Amino acid sequence: MIPFNKPYLSGNELEYIREAVASGRISGDGIFTKKCHEFFETRYGFQKCLLTTSCTDALEMAAILLDIRPGDEVIMPSYTFPSTANAFVLRGARIVFCDSREDHPGMSEDSIEELITPKTKAIVPVHYAGVACDMDKIMSLADKYNLYVVEDAAQAIDSFYTNKKGEKKPLGGIGHLAAFSFNETKNIISGEGGMLVINDPQFIERAEIIREKGTNRSKFFRGEVDKYKWVDIGSSFLPSDIIAAFLYAQLEKLELIQLKRKEIWQYYFEKLKPMAEKSAFQLPFIPEYATNNAHMFYIVCDSLNERTTLINQLKSNGILSVFHFISLHHSAFIRGMEEEREMPFSDLYTERILRLPFYNELLKSDQDKIVNQLLSSIVCLKGAAY
Amino acid sequence: MIPFNKPYLSGNELEYIREAVASGRISGDGIFTKKCHEFFETRYGFQKCLLTTSCTDALEMAAILLDIRPGDEVIMPSYTFPSTANAFVLRGARIVFCDSREDHPGMSEDSIEELITPKTKAIVPVHYAGVACDMDKIMSLADKYNLYVVEDAAQAIDSFYTNKKGEKKPLGGIGHLAAFSFNETKNIISGEGGMLVINDPQFIERAEIIREKGTNRSKFFRGEVDKYKWVDIGSSFLPSDIIAAFLYAQLEKLELIQLKRKEIWQYYFEKLKPMAEKSAFQLPFIPEYATNNAHMFYIVCDSLNERTTLINQLKSNGILSVFHFISLHHSAFIRGMEEEREMPFSDLYTERILRLPFYNELLKSDQDKIVNQLLSSIVCLKGAAY
Repeated sequence: MIPFNKPYLSGNELEYIREAVASGRISGDGIFTKKCHEFFETRYGFQKCLLTTSCTDALEMAAILLDIRPGDEVIMPSYTFPSTANAFVLRGARIVFCDSREDHPGMSEDSIEELITPKTKAIVPVHYAGVACDMDKIMSLADKYNLYVVEDAAQAIDSFYTNKKGEKKPLGGIGHLAAFSFNETKNIISGEGGMLVINDPQFIERAEIIREKGTNRSKFFRGEVDKYKWVDIGSSFLPSDIIAAFLYAQLEKLELIQLKRKEIWQYYFEKLKPMAEKSAFQLPFIPEYATNNAHMFYIVCDSLNERTTLINQLKSNGILSVFHFISLHHSAFIRGMEEEREMPFSDLYTERILRLPFYNELLKSDQDKIVNQLLSSIVCLKGAAY
Repeated sequence: MIPFNKPYLSGNELEYIREAVASGRISGDGIFTKKCHEFFETRYGFQKCLLTTSCTDALEMAAILLDIRPGDEVIMPSYTFPSTANAFVLRGARIVFCDSREDHPGMSEDSIEELITPKTKAIVPVHYAGVACDMDKIMSLADKYNLYVVEDAAQAIDSFYTNKKGEKKPLGGIGHLAAFSFNETKNIISGEGGMLVINDPQFIERAEIIREKGTNRSKFFRGEVDKYKWVDIGSSFLPSDIIAAFLYAQLEKLELIQLKRKEIWQYYFEKLKPMAEKSAFQLPFIPEYATNNAHMFYIVCDSLNERTTLINQLKSNGILSVFHFISLHHSAFIRGMEEEREMPFSDLYTERILRLPFYNELLKSDQDKIVNQLLSSIVCLKGAAY
């Protein structure tokens, strides 16, 4: 069986965990957590990074930092993972969903302005598949209406956006806050794991408190106060240094990992291009302002039926391919809170996206098998013209 | 320097992490998470166990499961860690603090009833130092007033309570819900880590959903639904299987670890007893219905000044001893929400508890050094009569 995903050891993970234990501290904010923070702050110029136990938790920290309260509205794509919404629902927000773009599963930047009301507090763009939303459009709306922007950069490590001025900016470094994921399906992994990035310095001091159970323990460890106290709401958002040690070993190999993933991505793309040109399915679209970080490879099938057939045929040939998000605006949970608006493109990607196996150790021979099976299944399905 | 705490490898931690990676799954609920759940369910007869990223997160799950809403009141000791309270404050609860017992830092069971109002929803006893609260009293109040009980069993692994009928029950197995910690200072560690125990089966199904970001993914993995959807509020409460693998290696050595810790505890107790009998300080009190799981060793000093002097003198002699909680009812954060009542015993333990170095690999020679330094410092402080 070729799995959809496969976690891997890049080299030093176990040795670094041993070092973390030997250092005398494996709770949060040990030596490897600091190394991870420095890595991201140095490489991408992020103002302040804080590892969290998940991207979900980083989004929850963002919701608390923005002081989201009942009645506040938050605009985000419907085509995303439930955590993007739940982080804000937990603080009482009303979620205002936005449709996807026609050419890409990311949110339709041109549809945002009509959703803004006096109650709107934040916009949460999701960089689907690590491909940038048009951040110039989103940031200028935020400026115009005095809103905050939280980038859901779960899939967007080492990916970039080139703005109108021609400046190339790392995703996660543009909004006021951003959240990354190191879940096992991501480019860089720690099983579960995440990170909050703070680009607006007004949030730094409170972020440290919220992440440490609402206490000023960070100040205590720096010797700035003589005991730490309960001073705010908060949770235990910080991961064990065991997780940070694992993560740091992966970060050290980021360049190699990215090279390998881009090779895998490009191979899929080239092999599938001829059939895509015959309109049998669509290939991922990368806008010119965006880079491709090779987070995932998907095709957009012609229909839900075709996708289901392909998933089943691949599976019966030992290949695990999967669908992805399900439009959140249709969920039974949210329907009572939100008037139902049509979101045809969110629904289209819900029904038609098919993700192919993608992991660092995917063999070319396995990729050949996947591509050949997929192409022959499509010919069976759609006829010899393909 | 003799540290206050020191994490350790019990043997198989790194090998099990390697196995988790090889298993193809290091996100939450992998093979080692299941092994940990089975360990606790089998050994202690807990109905349902769910690992979490921290004890804080387990308490937050409890607050969500109890459907705590603004206006609800939750009774808990003031002498506890801020997370006990914050988990419920995040859902909008008003916290009603209870004083400690005169003979023990645990909450005064006899003071609870007068704090109950029609708005009271839950009681959260904290088993301080792993020593049981009088659960018969607490559970009968819960029955009488139709309240839920959430045991904060952060420090209480492998500790027991003997009820009036003479039945010996594991802590964490008595209340409707319970929360454990595997933070690096605990008996069994995973750096950061926790567990929710569900003893009331009505909460099991929703707990699985809340822990999986408000989705029915657990059902999806069991093949009970064909896709998983957003169905509730929730967060990413489940830890990486890397953490579970580390934890399971420790659990396998639980008996050995507990033997060693009880030996360390007893050695402190015997060596300090003669001076305690001269009333230089108090030793921990274990009620007859409670066991001692040797989570920590503390003395109760005669005053804040004496404690401060002892901490400083131990430190200048290379020994790190520490104080513990700070009465939550005095915190600047809560004062606006709660009328200020006097809690003399909570304040007493805030000012006078001194915790001595305690970890599995603590050498007897180091214990001798600690005890000798402590005793000679006390003689200096209090005079030759001691």
